[in-house]
This record gives sequence, C-alpha cells and structure tokens, in this order.
Amino acid sequence: MIDENMMKLALQLAQSAEGQTSPNPLVGAVCVKNGQIIGTGAHLKAGTPHAEVHALKMAGAAAFGADLYVTLEPCAHHGQTPPCTELIISSGIRRVIIASTDPNPSVNGRGIEILKQAGIEVSTGVLQEEADYLNRAFFHFIQNGKPYVTLKAATTLDGRLATQNGDSKWITSETSRTDVHQLRHTHDAILVGVDTVLHDNPFLTTRLPHGGKNPIRIILDRQLRTPETANVIIDGAVETIIFTLESTKLNDQLTTYSNVSIERIPDSAHFLEEVLTRLAQKGIMTLFVEGGSRIHSSFMNARLADELYLYVAPKLIGNGPTIFMDETRSFMAESEGLSFLDVKKIGNDIRIHAQFRKEGES
Amino acid sequence: MIDENMMKLALQLAQSAEGQTSPNPLVGAVCVKNGQIIGTGAHLKAGTPHAEVHALKMAGAAAFGADLYVTLEPCAHHGQTPPCTELIISSGIRRVIIASTDPNPSVNGRGIEILKQAGIEVSTGVLQEEADYLNRAFFHFIQNGKPYVTLKAATTLDGRLATQNGDSKWITSETSRTDVHQLRHTHDAILVGVDTVLHDNPFLTTRLPHGGKNPIRIILDRQLRTPETANVIIDGAVETIIFTLESTKLNDQLTTYSNVSIERIPDSAHFLEEVLTRLAQKGIMTLFVEGGSRIHSSFMNARLADELYLYVAPKLIGNGPTIFMDETRSFMAESEGLSFLDVKKIGNDIRIHAQFRKEGES
Repeated sequence: MIDENMMKLALQLAQSAEGQTSPNPLVGAVCVKNGQIIGTGAHLKAGTPHAEVHALKMAGAAAFGADLYVTLEPCAHHGQTPPCTELIISSGIRRVIIASTDPNPSVNGRGIEILKQAGIEVSTGVLQEEADYLNRAFFHFIQNGKPYVTLKAATTLDGRLATQNGDSKWITSETSRTDVHQLRHTHDAILVGVDTVLHDNPFLTTRLPHGGKNPIRIILDRQLRTPETANVIIDGAVETIIFTLESTKLNDQLTTYSNVSIERIPDSAHFLEEVLTRLAQKGIMTLFVEGGSRIHSSFMNARLADELYLYVAPKLIGNGPTIFMDETRSFMAESEGLSFLDVKKIGNDIRIHAQFRKEGES
Repeated sequence: MIDENMMKLALQLAQSAEGQTSPNPLVGAVCVKNGQIIGTGAHLKAGTPHAEVHALKMAGAAAFGADLYVTLEPCAHHGQTPPCTELIISSGIRRVIIASTDPNPSVNGRGIEILKQAGIEVSTGVLQEEADYLNRAFFHFIQNGKPYVTLKAATTLDGRLATQNGDSKWITSETSRTDVHQLRHTHDAILVGVDTVLHDNPFLTTRLPHGGKNPIRIILDRQLRTPETANVIIDGAVETIIFTLESTKLNDQLTTYSNVSIERIPDSAHFLEEVLTRLAQKGIMTLFVEGGSRIHSSFMNARLADELYLYVAPKLIGNGPTIFMDETRSFMAESEGLSFLDVKKIGNDIRIHAQFRKEGES
C-alpha cells in the first residue's frame, strides 16, 4: 500500500510537467526513508535534470539507506545529463521502485540491471498501467518514430462539423474553445489542412488567460495554396512548416518570413506517413490535428490517428460533413474501433476523449 | 435545511414509482413531528391511494400537530380517490410543505387555498425545480394534451445510425441495449415506423432480467405495409396500434388479432400531431420513439420531441444516415437547440441524455 501511495505521488509530480518535457518522457520521483518523504522531483524540460536528480538533491545525505520511487526506469546512458543510475548508486539508495520500464533501446532494462548489480533491491510494475498511460505519447514516439497524433473536432449531436454550406462558427461554446487552447498548450505541434487556412485564416496560437505555449504550426498544402497574407505566415508568433509535393512550384513570397519553412515530399501516396516521419525527426513527439473532414479522414484511413477529442454541442443541424467520410464500408463490422477514455460536460457541451484501437486489439 | 432534507426524501419516494403511475404524476410524502419521521408514502399506481394518504395512515393519530412534506400540491377534487385536502385537515396537520404546484386545472392552487382556509400553514416552492423536473412528463401531458416524447437512437462517433446499405446490427454493446429495455419499462408506449417493422421485425417488448412492463406498441404506417406475420402483430404480448391514413385500404388480416387495432388519420400534413393527440386521449403520457432517421427527423421538424437518449458507440464508419436529416438549413444559427441533462459511460458506449429547448428559451 505504501508503494502504491508513494508511486501515485510520483505520478502526480510527473504529470505536472505534461506538455513541457518533449521529446523526453514525463517522470516523477519520490525519495522515502522511515515512511517519511525526504525528496521529491519531476523532470520539467529536456536538457534539464531528471526527476531522480531533483529528488536525491532534496534528500541530500539522508538519501543513504532510503527508498526511491520513480515512474520510469532510470537512465543508464550519458545523454544531455549524466546517467541517473550512477547518482542513485553513489547516494546509497537501498531500494528502487519503478512503474514503467523504458522503451528507449539505450535504456530498456539496462538501468534496472546496473542497479541490481550494485546490490540495490529493485521492484518493478508498481502502478505500471497508469505510468504507461501517462507516457503513451513518448512510448509511441520511441517505438514508431512518429509523433503521437490526437485529432480534435467539434460536432453537432448529429455528427456534423459544419453545415452544407460550410458554416461552423460556432458549433461549440466559448468554454469548449478555451479547453481546446489548453490542449494546444500541451502539444508540440498543431496541424491543419490548407483549406482551413483559406477558409478561416486562423492564428493557431494558444490564447489562455495566463498565456500558454504556442505549438509549431504545420500546414498540409500539396498544391501550395497558402496565401502570403495568411495569419500563420505573417504573425511571426511561432514556427510554421508547410508540407507540399515536390512537383509543386515553390512560392518565394512564403519563405521571406524567417519563421516559415517549406518541406517537399516526393511520394504522394505516402504523403501523410512521410510528413509524420519528418516531424518526428524534428523532435515533435505530440501532434494536435485540428482538421476538417478531409484531414481527419485521411489520418484515420491511414491508421495514423492515436486519440480523438470530440466536442459535441447540444445542437442538430441535419446536413453537412461528418468527422469521418469513407464510402468503401458497408457493414458495421468494418468500422474503425476506439475506446472511450473519458467523457464530461464542458460548459454547455460534452467532451468525449477516445483512443483508437491498435491493430490486433479487439 | 430540515425542509430541504425532508423534501429530498419525499422526492426519492416519488421517483421510486417512475414509469408506473401514468397518467398520474409521481408524488412522495413525508410526515414529520418533532424532527422525527412518523410517516412516508408514494403514489404507486393510478386508482390507488395518493402519497399523502399512505403517509398519514402510517402516522396514525400522531399526525395531529405534525408537518406534512409533499412533492406536489395535494388534490382538492373527488377523482378516483377522495380529495387529499380533506384527509390532511381531518388529521390535524399543522403545516404543509409543497414543492410543485399542480398544473391540473381542477387542482391548481385550489388545494393550497383550501388548506389555508382550514388554518393550516402552507409553504411552497421547496425544491420546486427538482420536483418540476421529476414530473416534466405529467406537466407536459396536462398542459399540451400530448404525450411527453423521448427519442432514442444509437449512433457511431461520426453520427451514423447505420451504414449506407442499412446495416446497424449492432452499433452499441449489449450493456447499452439492456439499458434501452430499462427505458422501455418506464414508458407508456413505444413508437416505430413501418420501415423498422419491415427491416428488423422487432418485438418491441421489455426484456429485463426481472421481466419488466411492456409499453403499448405504436406503428406509424401511412400505407399500411405492416405484414400480418410481423412479430408485433402475432406475438400477443401487448396492445399494438397502427396509425394509417384514412385513404389507405384496410387489411382485415391485421385486425383478426385482438391486441391489434388500426387508427385512421384524415389529414396527412398534421399526421404526427394527430397521432399524439389520440395517444393522449388513450391516457398515454410518455412515448418512447425508437425511430430511424426519417421518424426522428419528422418529430424534430414538427417540434414534437421533448427529450433524446443518444447511445454513442466508440466506432467510426464513414457513411450512412444520421439521426436528423434536413436539407433546408444552411447556417449553424438555424440549428435545433437542446441542453444536456446527463452523460455517462455505459459499458463500452456513452449515453447522452438531452432535452429539447422549447420555443422562447435561449
């Protein structure tokens, strides 16, 4: 019971940095001696000390003979910071309790091995499910070399993203729209199609009462139709990357802005997959897709969507595009499967949070 | 505070009989003396004693000088039972606390007046909002002369009731389908279109582990296409009423079953409105509509829908009919407005409970 309570605290510490550690995982640590907490820590930002370092520093000399709870297997390699295993051993920690093992090939199991070889008792799997869920984006990124993709849409109760003539302002209430800005804040990048740029001319920035972090803006634009006057081009708020086809003629006007770059993709059939691979190479671990029907459908059909936030307004309109359009399916058994993580009322609306099922899950 | 606590108990007693008092309201009563509960009661079924009678009988002689909490204004008229006001006065009740006033023209305010004239102190409006909500179907029935209409549908996350070729078995999980039977149990009648009879040949009975009450079955069938062999015709489980147009040729085969009757409606333009008026005349207070897209859309377009239960499955299919189809609306501002009452996970699905906004509400 004490193991679970302490690990729960470590998980809370880890979660507190959600959205700011990318491309690193969320990690929390708690150092305990005689049932008393003598040190706590969380990894706050890539390049800064790991959670274990903060907790052991706080504990100081008292760490000798203490237990260390950590939500992810301690690193054993020299990265931007020295290996945590070394510090744990030199601090005289008696026992290490771990939730998730690290999927990173340069850590996986080695951290645990090194600690055991130093005579430290190691317990694993404590609240592992919660810890694995917390770092689902990081695990996905490491294992697939692609960002973890979250789709976001706002629909009516009859599933419409807009009316038949494209009107969608506003489906949901202001409370829901503020909630979306909170989600933007926790993602590395935000993606829209060029149709959204042409239709709504959005800024795609995070506008919260206390400010917030702007995700990098990604525009899918095969024919390079983004206007030079678009807000995402001229506002200079944050980097904008436009992905286009290699065959498309470049527009020099677009690249006169230092925050704008254009990436050209050769193969049109695997366009989306290639975009995601390149984003991962830039260190983008989490991608928030604010698509219309076409963008969302292409992510779902390519099986590149991991999660969905659906804001549902208490309205019925009777026509217009839905979040997923696919004329090839004729039987319910052919549907895409998800599982609901959470559903709640937000202002006058409902927010549904769901996860796409992976191949092989039932 | 004591008033609210006692009224809360009275409301719970009232609610316990949900679905079995029609066409009477749900009413609970609590008799209290010196802060002690000395009697409780609920109205259980039309034609049987009112809640006040049960509570006062339980209290017996101790009712003299006691307080009586009742969720609805006591009746002052001779109906199937004698007026409750008489019994309250003769029992020597000191004070009566009321939540809702009765919208019934033969009661409205008269019960309160008679009690006051007898020297009894009367407090009104205690937890009135909760009490009004509990009897929303009764109030609607009395005030509009029509059943309270609840639409039910099961959709995918992209809002589809079925695939493009009509496959809908099954969208939702068994847990949700059992929940639907619980809702059938609490309604006086259940309505479908003839297309559902032709396509699914349902029984429309309540099949719960402990049994359950079968609502009267209503089939909308303008051209009288219901087959003589349909389950709703031949199973004899409960009354089936088919509504057709006066111009349609009758089918004598259908009416050889004693539980089947056919009602002919003259005017096609107000077909639905006339159906509801006739159902109310038969004492049907609550109507559960298990329609497809066409039936639901006609109720919504005629503004005859009061509530909606929407079961949403964690699936995306990409095509097929949605709950509401209307090609006439082009702007979000023209949408039908509802408000969410409740949303929760049921098995693998989500159940959304919403109320249609009435004319004039914003």
